[in-house]
Amino acid sequence: MIYLDNAATSWPKPHAVYNEVLNCMRKYCANPGRSGHKMAIQASEKIYECRENICKIFGIANPLCVSFTSNTTEALNMGIKGLLKPGDHAIITSMEHNSVLRPLKKLETSGVKLSIAKADINGRVNPKDILKYINKKTKLIITTHASNVCGTINPIKEIGIVAKENKLIHMVDAAQTAGVYPIDVKEMNIDILAFPGHKGLLGPQGTGGLYVREGIELDTLKEGGTGSVSESPYQPEFIPDRYESGTLNTPGIAGLNEGVKYILNTGLNEIMRHERELTKHMLEGLHSISKVEIYGTTQLEQRVGVVSINIKGKDCIDVCTELDEKFALESGTVRLSIGCFNTKQDIDKVLKAINEIAK
Amino acid sequence: MIYLDNAATSWPKPHAVYNEVLNCMRKYCANPGRSGHKMAIQASEKIYECRENICKIFGIANPLCVSFTSNTTEALNMGIKGLLKPGDHAIITSMEHNSVLRPLKKLETSGVKLSIAKADINGRVNPKDILKYINKKTKLIITTHASNVCGTINPIKEIGIVAKENKLIHMVDAAQTAGVYPIDVKEMNIDILAFPGHKGLLGPQGTGGLYVREGIELDTLKEGGTGSVSESPYQPEFIPDRYESGTLNTPGIAGLNEGVKYILNTGLNEIMRHERELTKHMLEGLHSISKVEIYGTTQLEQRVGVVSINIKGKDCIDVCTELDEKFALESGTVRLSIGCFNTKQDIDKVLKAINEIAK
Repeated sequence: MIYLDNAATSWPKPHAVYNEVLNCMRKYCANPGRSGHKMAIQASEKIYECRENICKIFGIANPLCVSFTSNTTEALNMGIKGLLKPGDHAIITSMEHNSVLRPLKKLETSGVKLSIAKADINGRVNPKDILKYINKKTKLIITTHASNVCGTINPIKEIGIVAKENKLIHMVDAAQTAGVYPIDVKEMNIDILAFPGHKGLLGPQGTGGLYVREGIELDTLKEGGTGSVSESPYQPEFIPDRYESGTLNTPGIAGLNEGVKYILNTGLNEIMRHERELTKHMLEGLHSISKVEIYGTTQLEQRVGVVSINIKGKDCIDVCTELDEKFALESGTVRLSIGCFNTKQDIDKVLKAINEIAK
Repeated sequence: MIYLDNAATSWPKPHAVYNEVLNCMRKYCANPGRSGHKMAIQASEKIYECRENICKIFGIANPLCVSFTSNTTEALNMGIKGLLKPGDHAIITSMEHNSVLRPLKKLETSGVKLSIAKADINGRVNPKDILKYINKKTKLIITTHASNVCGTINPIKEIGIVAKENKLIHMVDAAQTAGVYPIDVKEMNIDILAFPGHKGLLGPQGTGGLYVREGIELDTLKEGGTGSVSESPYQPEFIPDRYESGTLNTPGIAGLNEGVKYILNTGLNEIMRHERELTKHMLEGLHSISKVEIYGTTQLEQRVGVVSINIKGKDCIDVCTELDEKFALESGTVRLSIGCFNTKQDIDKVLKAINEIAK
């Protein structure tokens, strides 16, 4: 079986991820931050270790600026709703996931204004096009780092400069890049970063996170269940407790920590190089199949390993079913997304399968 | 080592829970609802199976009325913020967890009104005291099923009748009772039920849920990341997608399903009988130690196995540390909470330890 749906969830994970999830559940899965006993402290320490390792991946200085969430959607909702008040204006790109668009469409009903900067035909947004939409009420720019549809990478650093120069907050959705493509929050002028734990960072589902730069305080989406200052009727002001309501997913975070360690040990550049090589091989192969249309840019430096295609004369759901049934190829609806454990042989088999279907 | 912090997180879990979390991660942990391939479908089916089993525990007719959350706090926030608008009035009890109180304190700042019905000295609320607070603006009554501090059970069914007769919505926080004490949403007049997956239901951390009766539509706390109708800029109206934003914790839910199956196979009444027996044994033993003060009711039918104590002349944090260091007893801050895997021997050892500390 060939798995090419890593843009939805990466699979498989490094063995250490499975082992640590199990070890945590068996040995130290008490409630972190609720009690002072050894197991609870061990759980808290593991979570802190994961915060530290995530900081290494994203160039974050203070581990307390990293809050854990259940997924990227939650992190994006926290950032968007925590910042925008009626009358505020936000600029996003036309390539955003519905996890950015939907919370904003909801806020529009309470008086938040929204502008959408259009990407070019390859899915890339020009920072100048964002600049055009800035007005006196603008507070926030949100950009997806790489498209979940066509894999095209946006010029985050340049958009970050636009944000900085105009004293705007820059939020980035790293759903398709965290753990796969270099991210440095300082160098790239990222104020708020939403990321998944279960995709490129190789952790289990049920994990994700939100980085909020020091100096920015979000209004909370949820309150209660912090363990800290239990007796207070108000959410604590201090981070990360302020943003972490309810019992955390300790085994998930323990697993995520191993995923992140795997990346740190392997080297993110090595993972990127490997995925880029496979993407190149796949794009070249797909180009040679006459009926296949490929979305997004062909420039390897401007894309990640998420490749959406169309086969002329075929319904995309039929193609997906055929890939699964005939070739045991698990893909999104004709979205082929590469992970760090895919091989050249996987891609060859995919190309062969698509070639047969396209005939 | 003796674990008596089950009110925070139950530990250990049935072996089947560990095994299925691992099996899911290894074999079928694709993204449920995102793609149509076999692994993704298998993940979706497992999640649906868990919904069905949860329905069996709580007497819920329609599995789609059960939404998964990351914990009880999230479920409570969803219920509270999804219902109350400025001008609305809610009644809660003085025994509520901060996961109920804090969201409401926050809503007070935007014009929601709040009344708190006081419990008696044992932590029990009289339904008549709730009745007193009802006015024309009252929309919601929230009651904790059992106190997380002293274990006292509230007369949920009777409070439910008060709610029903006054056409109010009745929300119940089952953090300390789900999986341990019988709950039937219909019989008990519960309109909305928030419950943890990682306590009495014996699932992993990172799981919880929200039951919303058919006919009630909550405003959403988060939008996006539903997989379904991806292209729409609006959250789908249909359940459970409406309330499940972002990738679900599939391995956690697969584990929770095994926890729930364990309860269904063992029999909830058998688990309750066992925990009640241990609670009785513990309460009797504690009563015989002269310096120990016990909070909450001594009537076994009116409490769960959550026992908070005080040792005269001792700081509670010191007691907790001493219990952990000298006796390897993992408790909350002098909250001893029994789980279904505790034994009479555990309780005997606890009593011996507390006796020595109290000397």
